[in-house]
Amino acid sequence: MTTQAVPREPQQDRSRATRGRLLEAAIDCLASNGWAGTTVAVVAERAGVSRGAAQHHFRTREELVTAAVEYGSEVRTAQMREHLSALAGRRPSTLEVLTLLGEMYTSPLFRAALQLWVAAGSDAQLRARVVPLEARVGREAHRLAVEALGADESVSGVRESVQATLDLVRGLGLADLLTDDSARRSRLLRQWAATLDLTLHRAEAP
Amino acid sequence: MTTQAVPREPQQDRSRATRGRLLEAAIDCLASNGWAGTTVAVVAERAGVSRGAAQHHFRTREELVTAAVEYGSEVRTAQMREHLSALAGRRPSTLEVLTLLGEMYTSPLFRAALQLWVAAGSDAQLRARVVPLEARVGREAHRLAVEALGADESVSGVRESVQATLDLVRGLGLADLLTDDSARRSRLLRQWAATLDLTLHRAEAP
Repeated sequence: MTTQAVPREPQQDRSRATRGRLLEAAIDCLASNGWAGTTVAVVAERAGVSRGAAQHHFRTREELVTAAVEYGSEVRTAQMREHLSALAGRRPSTLEVLTLLGEMYTSPLFRAALQLWVAAGSDAQLRARVVPLEARVGREAHRLAVEALGADESVSGVRESVQATLDLVRGLGLADLLTDDSARRSRLLRQWAATLDLTLHRAEAP
Repeated sequence: MTTQAVPREPQQDRSRATRGRLLEAAIDCLASNGWAGTTVAVVAERAGVSRGAAQHHFRTREELVTAAVEYGSEVRTAQMREHLSALAGRRPSTLEVLTLLGEMYTSPLFRAALQLWVAAGSDAQLRARVVPLEARVGREAHRLAVEALGADESVSGVRESVQATLDLVRGLGLADLLTDDSARRSRLLRQWAATLDLTLHRAEAP
């Protein structure tokens, strides 16, 4: 991305690239090693960045990990918007949208976020940092789902159904944590899509 | 419970009681302190049991914590069955069942189980122990939900809808981890109960 940007200070470019590598490495590290196995030093090594340079960007693991989950969510949301707009004006089917959401919530990013959420559950200082982040990420996911599904939230029950869909895929993400749950997940999303279609459609034409 | 049982060796009784106290304390400890803050020593202190006695029952944190989640799930399932049978033959409404499930998946037991699942995600040895436990707990929760909802799984789509209900409440449990999500959860479960009623009913009389 940076190569296509307006020319800027090479040093600033390098600094941005280093930051990006650290954020990507933090997501991978959290997703595979868990919270306890993720420190600034471990992530720096994974990213091929000196420990000093990493510390320059992120003083603590908490700073690094929250920034990584925020960054990852933005990238992932942008990718999903791109994917949806690549459909060239055709409204994606409910099942297509659910399948994309299902992928989003079984990705390394979801696993990384889960590690952060769970660690924040027993650490008041971390919780104060994570709660507003969770709210932002949640709102963005909701907006994306509403747009993608073409849901009319002014109709009674529709808002709750979209929210339930996001809670469902979050639960499916959890179910995929220890074993490959993809076969069950597709059966289930097919059924959920049929039910959701009824709700969205019934709501449009009561 | 043990006081009403057939008389047995007092020492055996004491041993069972000690074990039970350790298991309860392990659930509370995991739910509030997280995985890193839960060791056999910390749980022993919380349970008012000597470290030696605790080690006699559970050699490692992994043993203690898996036993605690299994025990907690059995107790919680038995409580829910009792609650349902106290309705004296009246079939509980779908919303009543969903509300009970929602409580089950926002309890300290769910938080404790979540800590265990997430820790197992980055520890192969622990995963080998947790995967069969997760499967057993999942099957039991599914059976309970089917019974409580009076769902006929021979009808197409019903099994998936019951499973989706459990994945949904699991996602709701996650949403309740850092902030009180109860108001949103009840709106959402009310809406899902209405949808699920249609699915179960439509399936019964096509």
